[in-house]
Amino acid sequence: MPSHLVVLAAGAGTRMQSDLPKVLHQIGHAPLFAHALASAVTLEPGRRVLVAGHGADAVRKAAAETDPDLQVVLQSEQLGTGHAVAQARAALEGAEGDVFVLYGDTPFIRPETLTRMAEARRDGAAVVVLGFEAADPGRYGRLKMAGDRLEAIVEFKDATEDERAITLCNSGVICADAAVLFDLIDAVGNDNASGEYYLTDIVAIARAQGMHATAVTCPEAETMGINTRAELARAEALFQSRKRDAALENGVTLTAPDTVYFAHDTELGRDAVVEPHVVFGPGVTVESGATIRAFSHLEGCHVGADAVVGPYARLRPGAELGNGAKVGNFVEIKSAELGEGAKVNHLSYIGDARVGAAANIGAGTITCNYDGVFKHQTTIGERAFIGSNTMLVAPVKVGDEAMTGSGSVITSDVPDGALALGRARQLNKDGFARKLMARLKAAKSKRTN
Amino acid sequence: MPSHLVVLAAGAGTRMQSDLPKVLHQIGHAPLFAHALASAVTLEPGRRVLVAGHGADAVRKAAAETDPDLQVVLQSEQLGTGHAVAQARAALEGAEGDVFVLYGDTPFIRPETLTRMAEARRDGAAVVVLGFEAADPGRYGRLKMAGDRLEAIVEFKDATEDERAITLCNSGVICADAAVLFDLIDAVGNDNASGEYYLTDIVAIARAQGMHATAVTCPEAETMGINTRAELARAEALFQSRKRDAALENGVTLTAPDTVYFAHDTELGRDAVVEPHVVFGPGVTVESGATIRAFSHLEGCHVGADAVVGPYARLRPGAELGNGAKVGNFVEIKSAELGEGAKVNHLSYIGDARVGAAANIGAGTITCNYDGVFKHQTTIGERAFIGSNTMLVAPVKVGDEAMTGSGSVITSDVPDGALALGRARQLNKDGFARKLMARLKAAKSKRTN
Amino acid sequence: MPSHLVVLAAGAGTRMQSDLPKVLHQIGHAPLFAHALASAVTLEPGRRVLVAGHGADAVRKAAAETDPDLQVVLQSEQLGTGHAVAQARAALEGAEGDVFVLYGDTPFIRPETLTRMAEARRDGAAVVVLGFEAADPGRYGRLKMAGDRLEAIVEFKDATEDERAITLCNSGVICADAAVLFDLIDAVGNDNASGEYYLTDIVAIARAQGMHATAVTCPEAETMGINTRAELARAEALFQSRKRDAALENGVTLTAPDTVYFAHDTELGRDAVVEPHVVFGPGVTVESGATIRAFSHLEGCHVGADAVVGPYARLRPGAELGNGAKVGNFVEIKSAELGEGAKVNHLSYIGDARVGAAANIGAGTITCNYDGVFKHQTTIGERAFIGSNTMLVAPVKVGDEAMTGSGSVITSDVPDGALALGRARQLNKDGFARKLMARLKAAKSKRTN
Repeated sequence: MPSHLVVLAAGAGTRMQSDLPKVLHQIGHAPLFAHALASAVTLEPGRRVLVAGHGADAVRKAAAETDPDLQVVLQSEQLGTGHAVAQARAALEGAEGDVFVLYGDTPFIRPETLTRMAEARRDGAAVVVLGFEAADPGRYGRLKMAGDRLEAIVEFKDATEDERAITLCNSGVICADAAVLFDLIDAVGNDNASGEYYLTDIVAIARAQGMHATAVTCPEAETMGINTRAELARAEALFQSRKRDAALENGVTLTAPDTVYFAHDTELGRDAVVEPHVVFGPGVTVESGATIRAFSHLEGCHVGADAVVGPYARLRPGAELGNGAKVGNFVEIKSAELGEGAKVNHLSYIGDARVGAAANIGAGTITCNYDGVFKHQTTIGERAFIGSNTMLVAPVKVGDEAMTGSGSVITSDVPDGALALGRARQLNKDGFARKLMARLKAAKSKRTN
Repeated sequence: MPSHLVVLAAGAGTRMQSDLPKVLHQIGHAPLFAHALASAVTLEPGRRVLVAGHGADAVRKAAAETDPDLQVVLQSEQLGTGHAVAQARAALEGAEGDVFVLYGDTPFIRPETLTRMAEARRDGAAVVVLGFEAADPGRYGRLKMAGDRLEAIVEFKDATEDERAITLCNSGVICADAAVLFDLIDAVGNDNASGEYYLTDIVAIARAQGMHATAVTCPEAETMGINTRAELARAEALFQSRKRDAALENGVTLTAPDTVYFAHDTELGRDAVVEPHVVFGPGVTVESGATIRAFSHLEGCHVGADAVVGPYARLRPGAELGNGAKVGNFVEIKSAELGEGAKVNHLSYIGDARVGAAANIGAGTITCNYDGVFKHQTTIGERAFIGSNTMLVAPVKVGDEAMTGSGSVITSDVPDGALALGRARQLNKDGFARKLMARLKAAKSKRTN
Repeated sequence: MPSHLVVLAAGAGTRMQSDLPKVLHQIGHAPLFAHALASAVTLEPGRRVLVAGHGADAVRKAAAETDPDLQVVLQSEQLGTGHAVAQARAALEGAEGDVFVLYGDTPFIRPETLTRMAEARRDGAAVVVLGFEAADPGRYGRLKMAGDRLEAIVEFKDATEDERAITLCNSGVICADAAVLFDLIDAVGNDNASGEYYLTDIVAIARAQGMHATAVTCPEAETMGINTRAELARAEALFQSRKRDAALENGVTLTAPDTVYFAHDTELGRDAVVEPHVVFGPGVTVESGATIRAFSHLEGCHVGADAVVGPYARLRPGAELGNGAKVGNFVEIKSAELGEGAKVNHLSYIGDARVGAAANIGAGTITCNYDGVFKHQTTIGERAFIGSNTMLVAPVKVGDEAMTGSGSVITSDVPDGALALGRARQLNKDGFARKLMARLKAAKSKRTN
């Protein structure tokens, strides 16, 4: 049966103390709402609707970047979760199957949990609510079960003493029959203390209409919602902990797991080694046997097998390292391809470039790729030897097995096998340094007196 | 009523295993004694006296840097806490109101705690002792209370079985009536096992003279004293934890709070983002919306709104970044002002300089500010474009909208809108690289054979 | 009595998910088996035998690097621990005294524990087994004691209910009389479920022959074996925690101990200060009073007293810093000696060099030490002043008190006190930058339209 998805993402998130809408705060370099979307990935939901409100323009932009088929609808007033889901009515017009309602600030629901909810629907429930056994139920709504039948969701403030003793609590996540969901929502009223339309009311309404409702439970950790920066930091820590455990299980060596930060999509091959203090931004893949040394920072790049990166290497988007390539300390690589076994060992900037296999780039080399308006390409041949502190003024080409002299500014192409020099002759002025220093020190002593 | 402060800071701190006097070891880049001083900040103490002993010269110097009005008196022999406070007699001559006695190695007493002690004085106590409920009372002195009356402070070794069952322990912190403090101290004897004059004895003496004594309690964590490097490290960890929590509460995003280190005076604006692995030295302010990327190190600098710093940026004292400025990887900025939107993206050293708004500083640029004796200034105009690897030999000025060619050494001023070049012409020697490499390899094979 | 050592290191370590043999995975930059060897260091074992199997070639190579006198014998089939020890028969031919059997994947046994086992041998036991009180005995073998007599080692699956209630478990570590060990092993059979020869069976055999067997116990943490990457990471964390505690006890300041990573042989002097986020590779010694600032990475180097390193300094093997020397940010030092008080403050690469006392190396200086085949030496004199961005094309010598101009390429020696320049003259082209920028912007606007 097809699935559809509604993600509620309209809240202001006042307690975040932020100008950024809450659902755009990130975990593992992906916005919170994207984690909610990812929860449903194995369901392959046909229609996906995001209900935006506060900061809707920014949310719309981020939604388009995350999932071009994600429809964004606007909830211009925040009148409760029932009202929020109602905004998705047009977007889900004529949809059949299951509609899942998730929350943009609840990033840890596991796909298997939603699969179990779908199964409960298969078993005849019109509405399936996700519950959790709360360590401290506090003021959560309680799920009142009779066998596998969900009798009601009781708000804490309306609950009797007996009902408050229930520890099975409401996560807010719901899966309902697409054919009846909006009819049920139409029947929800707002005759309560806060004057809001509560989505949870559809359970009682469905039951009153003779439909079957049930609950599925998951560990409390999955239902963790983000309301403050401190909670965001804790969620990030939980996310990182999961990623580190997964990497270790896959045969990656992490010398100091607690100091390595992953993005949601980081991929590390077997026998990859990651030293302490490494940060992965989004879009990184590292092949088997590669070593990422301490203090390295990688984003949007690919590291070939047995390559060695760092310490202190910065790989920016578009860096593609061939097998066995080496990028050393204080080196930045951006939009550049390094051939097999190529080396950029020290203090260099290689941007918008292609470096041939086994080429050796000396310390202090810079591709001068920007003229203030345009970016230009540099091409370096195989086995080329770029002398220290060479400026490669792009567009420019250095041939295979060509060399450049240290300190040269290369403005025109260097043929294969040629040596290019572009520097002034050295001149020694005897005794001049001592005289100069004596003069400076005299001046200083004068000033001081 | 006016307050005065005596901070005891004469101890050797033998267990620190250090040549540095204990109170000069630091937490959050401030010496321990400065944290004790800061505990009293809301009391606005009129006279502030530091009792130095071991390493007094170094302590005196640090005291002057921390608080120019702090009087340092010398306790040349260490004969007990009573004797230590007695050294402050002359400095407090004629003082009225409250005298607080704090400890230079006890950095975590909260201002509110001292305020409550002052209130207890208002309620009629001549002497107010700060106590704490100890999780493990061990060998601490016990506070024997009768209602709100402090009957006595009983040393552990003198305590009866019943007294040892008391869990309210003595922190050593005391607030006493300035008019009687030194008379009470005069009555303290040293007829005990260690032959020392104990400040705590003034409680019994005051009581014997018919004065009222009482105790105020605080959480045990506040009374944590530092005696070893391990305790210092734990104290630093506690300090950092408090600073991180405060930043999160103020609307700062800390992706990985445990990897970010603050100084005592770090200030971060709302919606500032701090990535993992960042170190703040003293004197840093970061405006709202700025991003401090991973592996950055900031000291004595100001980062304007929406500026982006790092990864791997080092901002040293005197770095002033305008709004929207960018400082990228492997860049050091010192005593330099960057105008709005100015960019220094890679591998540069900018020191003793002024960079105009929207200027773009190419990779590998260095301000050559030091001639071996003097430092000189570099000025770069608005919208100027400094080519990669430009050496700016200060003093020198590059005008508005001027450019420099990559690899140029700029020794004289560049007018507005001009292009300055200072480099040799490129010369290609065909086939030369191949010949050279062949010769070198032949030499190597000869050596090896 | 002499001691001998057999370290079992033949296992595949399948659960490590690695092509590297398990015992070559590292803790504190030393392979696991080397930690086992180090457990026995105070015994000064005369013959040392490593039993290799999976990945024997790689193990043999690492063994030779770790301890040239370590004999490596091959267990070509893995038929149990008894069979493994049997492979050491020839290597221990004629040996007298104690034979200790340790495990290459069990790195935390303390030397004092093995000393106690040796003492138990002195007290008359032919076989001494190392046991531990297990928090959760699970499926470990149980040590059945009668007084100080070890009656039997009972495998869990063969144990009665009563025997399973025993919490004293078998670590597998054994010390036996060299004169009888191999006879006992000859008597071990493989008539059990897995068809393996178990070393532990020698206890029952020895007892049956009327010999005395006993057990010595140690904390469970010492017996921790490594089977997965996650366990390896936990072992590394435990190792680091011990090293940090030891450093603090020795009078080192670690601002943030949890972010500092040590190697097995790191040595830090009293009053050395280590800031947050520092990594020590193998072979580092730091003298008293030196400061290692944040984000530094040190390997195979020596830092003199009161020297200051970092932030962002990389010291590679062969870096020797004299007292009071300074290595600043984004600087790499390799195989280079820095004289007393010499400074390399920014963005430099100094390799294969000797820098004289009090010399000052400007930002962006590079020793061009590699010609594509050979490495060459650079020598810089005392009090020399190397201007920013100087290329020192080795082999080359700069004299005492000599200077080089910023941006110079130095290809021939500079005499003492001389000034060397090697750069082109600056030329300003008035108005040219504005014209160029206007042309570029026009081109851009054309492309966009």
